[in-house]
Amino acid sequence: MTSTEHVEITGHLMDSGILSRVLDDIRQYGGDWVIERIDVGHEASDMSTATIKIWTDDDDDLQRLLMRLQTHGVNMVDPGEASVTVADTDGVFPDEFYSTTNLETRVRVDGRWVAVDNPEMDCGLVVEGEGDRTRVYTLPMSDVKAGMRVVCGAAGIKVTVPEVAKSSESFGFMESDVSSEKPQAVLVRQVADGMRDAKDNGKKVLWVGGPGVVHTGASPAMVALVNAGFVDVLFAGNALATHDIESALYGTSLGVDLAHGRGVEHGHEHHIRALNTIRKAGSIKAAVDSGVLSGGIMHALVTHDKEFVLVGSVRDDGPLPDVYTDVIDGQRAMRAKLADVGFCLMVATMLHSVATGNILPASIPLVCVDINPATVTKLADRGSSQARGIVTDVGLFLEQLAQELVPEYRRP
Amino acid sequence: MTSTEHVEITGHLMDSGILSRVLDDIRQYGGDWVIERIDVGHEASDMSTATIKIWTDDDDDLQRLLMRLQTHGVNMVDPGEASVTVADTDGVFPDEFYSTTNLETRVRVDGRWVAVDNPEMDCGLVVEGEGDRTRVYTLPMSDVKAGMRVVCGAAGIKVTVPEVAKSSESFGFMESDVSSEKPQAVLVRQVADGMRDAKDNGKKVLWVGGPGVVHTGASPAMVALVNAGFVDVLFAGNALATHDIESALYGTSLGVDLAHGRGVEHGHEHHIRALNTIRKAGSIKAAVDSGVLSGGIMHALVTHDKEFVLVGSVRDDGPLPDVYTDVIDGQRAMRAKLADVGFCLMVATMLHSVATGNILPASIPLVCVDINPATVTKLADRGSSQARGIVTDVGLFLEQLAQELVPEYRRP
Amino acid sequence: MTSTEHVEITGHLMDSGILSRVLDDIRQYGGDWVIERIDVGHEASDMSTATIKIWTDDDDDLQRLLMRLQTHGVNMVDPGEASVTVADTDGVFPDEFYSTTNLETRVRVDGRWVAVDNPEMDCGLVVEGEGDRTRVYTLPMSDVKAGMRVVCGAAGIKVTVPEVAKSSESFGFMESDVSSEKPQAVLVRQVADGMRDAKDNGKKVLWVGGPGVVHTGASPAMVALVNAGFVDVLFAGNALATHDIESALYGTSLGVDLAHGRGVEHGHEHHIRALNTIRKAGSIKAAVDSGVLSGGIMHALVTHDKEFVLVGSVRDDGPLPDVYTDVIDGQRAMRAKLADVGFCLMVATMLHSVATGNILPASIPLVCVDINPATVTKLADRGSSQARGIVTDVGLFLEQLAQELVPEYRRP
Amino acid sequence: MTSTEHVEITGHLMDSGILSRVLDDIRQYGGDWVIERIDVGHEASDMSTATIKIWTDDDDDLQRLLMRLQTHGVNMVDPGEASVTVADTDGVFPDEFYSTTNLETRVRVDGRWVAVDNPEMDCGLVVEGEGDRTRVYTLPMSDVKAGMRVVCGAAGIKVTVPEVAKSSESFGFMESDVSSEKPQAVLVRQVADGMRDAKDNGKKVLWVGGPGVVHTGASPAMVALVNAGFVDVLFAGNALATHDIESALYGTSLGVDLAHGRGVEHGHEHHIRALNTIRKAGSIKAAVDSGVLSGGIMHALVTHDKEFVLVGSVRDDGPLPDVYTDVIDGQRAMRAKLADVGFCLMVATMLHSVATGNILPASIPLVCVDINPATVTKLADRGSSQARGIVTDVGLFLEQLAQELVPEYRRP
Repeated sequence: MTSTEHVEITGHLMDSGILSRVLDDIRQYGGDWVIERIDVGHEASDMSTATIKIWTDDDDDLQRLLMRLQTHGVNMVDPGEASVTVADTDGVFPDEFYSTTNLETRVRVDGRWVAVDNPEMDCGLVVEGEGDRTRVYTLPMSDVKAGMRVVCGAAGIKVTVPEVAKSSESFGFMESDVSSEKPQAVLVRQVADGMRDAKDNGKKVLWVGGPGVVHTGASPAMVALVNAGFVDVLFAGNALATHDIESALYGTSLGVDLAHGRGVEHGHEHHIRALNTIRKAGSIKAAVDSGVLSGGIMHALVTHDKEFVLVGSVRDDGPLPDVYTDVIDGQRAMRAKLADVGFCLMVATMLHSVATGNILPASIPLVCVDINPATVTKLADRGSSQARGIVTDVGLFLEQLAQELVPEYRRP
Repeated sequence: MTSTEHVEITGHLMDSGILSRVLDDIRQYGGDWVIERIDVGHEASDMSTATIKIWTDDDDDLQRLLMRLQTHGVNMVDPGEASVTVADTDGVFPDEFYSTTNLETRVRVDGRWVAVDNPEMDCGLVVEGEGDRTRVYTLPMSDVKAGMRVVCGAAGIKVTVPEVAKSSESFGFMESDVSSEKPQAVLVRQVADGMRDAKDNGKKVLWVGGPGVVHTGASPAMVALVNAGFVDVLFAGNALATHDIESALYGTSLGVDLAHGRGVEHGHEHHIRALNTIRKAGSIKAAVDSGVLSGGIMHALVTHDKEFVLVGSVRDDGPLPDVYTDVIDGQRAMRAKLADVGFCLMVATMLHSVATGNILPASIPLVCVDINPATVTKLADRGSSQARGIVTDVGLFLEQLAQELVPEYRRP
Repeated sequence: MTSTEHVEITGHLMDSGILSRVLDDIRQYGGDWVIERIDVGHEASDMSTATIKIWTDDDDDLQRLLMRLQTHGVNMVDPGEASVTVADTDGVFPDEFYSTTNLETRVRVDGRWVAVDNPEMDCGLVVEGEGDRTRVYTLPMSDVKAGMRVVCGAAGIKVTVPEVAKSSESFGFMESDVSSEKPQAVLVRQVADGMRDAKDNGKKVLWVGGPGVVHTGASPAMVALVNAGFVDVLFAGNALATHDIESALYGTSLGVDLAHGRGVEHGHEHHIRALNTIRKAGSIKAAVDSGVLSGGIMHALVTHDKEFVLVGSVRDDGPLPDVYTDVIDGQRAMRAKLADVGFCLMVATMLHSVATGNILPASIPLVCVDINPATVTKLADRGSSQARGIVTDVGLFLEQLAQELVPEYRRP
Repeated sequence: MTSTEHVEITGHLMDSGILSRVLDDIRQYGGDWVIERIDVGHEASDMSTATIKIWTDDDDDLQRLLMRLQTHGVNMVDPGEASVTVADTDGVFPDEFYSTTNLETRVRVDGRWVAVDNPEMDCGLVVEGEGDRTRVYTLPMSDVKAGMRVVCGAAGIKVTVPEVAKSSESFGFMESDVSSEKPQAVLVRQVADGMRDAKDNGKKVLWVGGPGVVHTGASPAMVALVNAGFVDVLFAGNALATHDIESALYGTSLGVDLAHGRGVEHGHEHHIRALNTIRKAGSIKAAVDSGVLSGGIMHALVTHDKEFVLVGSVRDDGPLPDVYTDVIDGQRAMRAKLADVGFCLMVATMLHSVATGNILPASIPLVCVDINPATVTKLADRGSSQARGIVTDVGLFLEQLAQELVPEYRRP
């Protein structure tokens, strides 16, 4: 029996390609549609609204399709009340659990709309408390406990797409402005402006980095940015920290493989010895405090009391004592640092960029810099639609960023 | 005060570029050298031998240089006795510990040469027992316990480079034969021969795979190869298994992003729902046994009682209940499956390929197939010198491999 | 003073992203717009129509914007009559000449709509004759002569977007069908179907190839396809033909650079000697006729009386006597072969693919196969919107294509 | 019957991998060898010398092998006299013509060693005059005329490998120095030093550029470098010049495709209109003189009386009136500008970089900068062994280069 629903979407429908993706998804889920009404904005900054009737062969498909469409900001015209089911097994959601987007989300429980605490994609929604004190928050699958009340189906849920993609004056990256300025210089300046804005608004700047930061010689630039207060939190793996420490301990920068633009990472006994040295000290901070470690990015972070979360991967040597070897624990530690982040810069890492994109609300401006176009496109592919990509040399980019943000910075 | 040592190296010095890398390393470690003697083989299959005098400013540098040179198969002419120090802290080696290569290694303890049990790079060497019952084995840094006896310095150690790189008849990949055959067809056949040889010798075939195996449509080919007995062990992450299971559960193959040659991995609620389904079942095997999972690669492995080790990463959703979330535990589980592996094929994954390269002895033939040249070169860069790389489409390659190895295989 | 015009566009506006590109262009040209009416199709196969009022600050800008918008299939609601100006210099168009799209185009001259003979992008439109015998054809800038009558401005011109992008049953490449089939196998089959359709309709199949066809070992597959009648015309450069001939003359296939997936092209004296041999014979055909050349792709083309156009480039050695060394002459020769082409396959060449994309009408189905994603995206970037890209290994792809189209084909 | 020869090679045999390539080539040509003597240098800067006996089944093979080996700097111990044959057809060399390397070459004619005028790879050697007035020069195949005396076989020829690859103090790029400096900053400085050295020695600096110079926003930096005298000659295609002129005429920089790091080149009517404007003016210089063109790179070159050679390709629109449409004529024009070039920088072009590499003597320092590693490796693959590659962002690199070389340069 055919199941039908009316949905609506508001946004820059005409110039964002979003309507196309919505209709694609309806087809992919075996559904059909009629666009019943479409109000087109008359000014560039106006939003358009469309009302679409959609239907599928059965209701389960429809529920899934409705959840899917919410990733694009499509809401039911009449969402009704959320349906809540109690989880019966730790680490397992009820069958028809609502799978979240990373958009600002509200849930209608007992007749009132409750804002979801911490938007994150691919989670479930857990309802706590009642009446005025009802709270709804996202929870990853691995953290659900038996007895928790989990939202199921797509009813009673509304999402809001951030306006940033279009209207932002301070961060209008992808707008194809006709400009006689230098593209790369413009991009550097826009990232600098994004960081300044975040700081001016009392927000934190989150960096996500890979070992390429060290290999491309960008360490002095990044140290200058840490010292100047433009790095509040760093998410990275064992490699960035170890190469940074190795470079500080042994005075060497690994030979750069010019043909491929990246350093040779492995097989160098300095690497394994640096790990052993910090393990002996007990932690990076202990190594700094005892004077064993006296330079580099990690040293600067410790010295300025900045936060970092290092999460391990299966290819790690060591690892450093500060590294989370359990990746789910690592994800929890990363989530715990997201509050108050106002800008996120990802440099030279695919693994940790994707991991951060997974947990970051869509409302936080996000720029990804890498010499490899695949890293940059991967993020957007995976749902971080706010991601802006810059394909460039990480070393030269951070050099210019330091020149822009730290007036007294001089190339070493 | 200058420290001096005589070292020797035997191998295809003239046509492997290895002597060049040895001399580079000597310079990098601040040392100097004189080549005192060089015996050049007269036939293509003959080995050459060089004796080199090397020196550095102090003995610590010399010890490190000697360890470094062993990664190339360079041994001291007169290695003497190994020096052994007792570890005093869990997870920390003594300061001057010997950092291992992945080559066949012998250690001279109490006047006798003892073969190291399980060659693995970037580990320490632990000595157990005495006299006839002396045993030496590699141990990763994180597994060392206070009280263990660890080899320090480079004395008393000899390594042997495998001959495979040159003399192998059955697997002569990189030899630039003049041939009128199709290069790709030749490569497929050589991989097939390598697998057949391993099976004929009673060895296991190890696969290391990424989600690209599923995205490129290679699942039916890989299932055929599992059924035919050419996949004994699979190392992978959460992604390969989840995409495979999602494909089996929902009858969908994710849309292929033609512009980039890989599937769109994320943001698809099927993905997160497939994870929840298997978590509910308790394990992949339980899902197969209960009939929930009835097709795909993981199903084939379970059905044929083949082994797999899935190790998580920080970007994982879920993960599947079978996934090691602790990467160090995951490494241990991978190591435990290496015994009797006679051939290793890596397809479409950089993370797990590098992780496997880290723990694999150099004596095991290793082929890496990826459409991205960076993955292929990365492995060799990191010390897996036996790695042979094939830059090609994974889907078409596995299709051809199945046609070669499984006569009755037909394209679905 | 503001200049205003009403334009309309009909097509799959909602799911093609085309409306977004139209509005982007209006902004880029400093214009503004109001969407006055939009009729949305109710079925997937229905077209939508939009009427848009656009305006700019002056009329010159408006004319240019109107021309620009026609590349997307946007026409004026009331186009009026074409304006014609006489060229006064050879090789130079009048200042405000209409710059063509590659779409089917009609021009209103003396009150009647005349279809343009040979759509090609970035050309001018020349009007010949009068009344019933009026003819309008595209002409590249370098071929215009003083005295020719050239269409100026955007008035009096209508373009039609091919429906193929959406409705084609036989060639539905990019439609993100949910399918359990193997992506690569599906793609091979679709290319095969496209070629069969073209032949069934009495059309020619055009191939555009680079030397990678030879390096990846695809020559036997391509020869089989020539023999079976699936290659009517080949556009290539000096390199493909020379490497093919070198391989036929010397029985060698160049060593394949496994790390980078392509052959080493140069510095091989066989290469230069093969060129000299054919130059001595006088032409490729003469070398075939005299028995000097007895195998390979060029031999197959000559033997089956198929056509080829080889156009040189500044990096060429030799070149072969059949190569057009003047690139403008080469473009003319390529244009002369486009009549009756019904399908175009581009393999392993960026230069000649882009060159062919430049002159190919949008109505001809076009597939581009390359292991390098950049080649595939470049074509679409440059205006060949009908281009479908397949990122894969050329050798294995042509192998599978030959297996699909030539039942008796066997791998050598 | 086996043909045998003794050859010798002097150079940094141990650390350059060259001996390995020599032995590979011997095998590839079906030959065999014995290394009879090898003298290894004792200091890092010392050269080594090897004497090798080589043999093949017949003499023709041996002659070809000897020619092939000369590309690596291998000479016969006893080269004897050159053999000279008269060409009997225009554009065709005698069958067994000597195919040149790009190394410094001497030919023994009538008992005396004559230096070859203009080393270029893949040419023939033409002998003119007699006795004291004997002259030998390279000639490309297409320029040979009947009656010319051409060197055949490998006898009587000696080549010399430039020392630059190793000993150069001023340009020690690939030496894997242990350095705590920033790799990218070091590379910029080394290129700057190379240019300064060339100018100090009264030599010209040759640039080879692609349109990426404009797209990445590097035009102001390059203009500053032209103004400061660091660009003496520019080799490019129609695209660089047209995009530069378009940018100057229309005040636009093409939208940068951030996902792929390069601009959208085509389909923009500004592009075709810029071409028409310069064609109307008659030449770039005429457009500068008449004030039509008043900015950009081409304007700067014209204003400072610098030289440029623009050579067309089959994908060109227009082209500009200054463009050589005949690629062989273009090659001749490029050759004519090589005299006195002392440094060559290639940026963001594969086609013209390879074309220039083909004609450049190995003695000229050559640096290739591109964000695409393939471009960088292609050059070395094709025989430009002196090429140094830098994989980086062209825009940021030229920005830094201008800052280094032009003290008063400020980012616009």
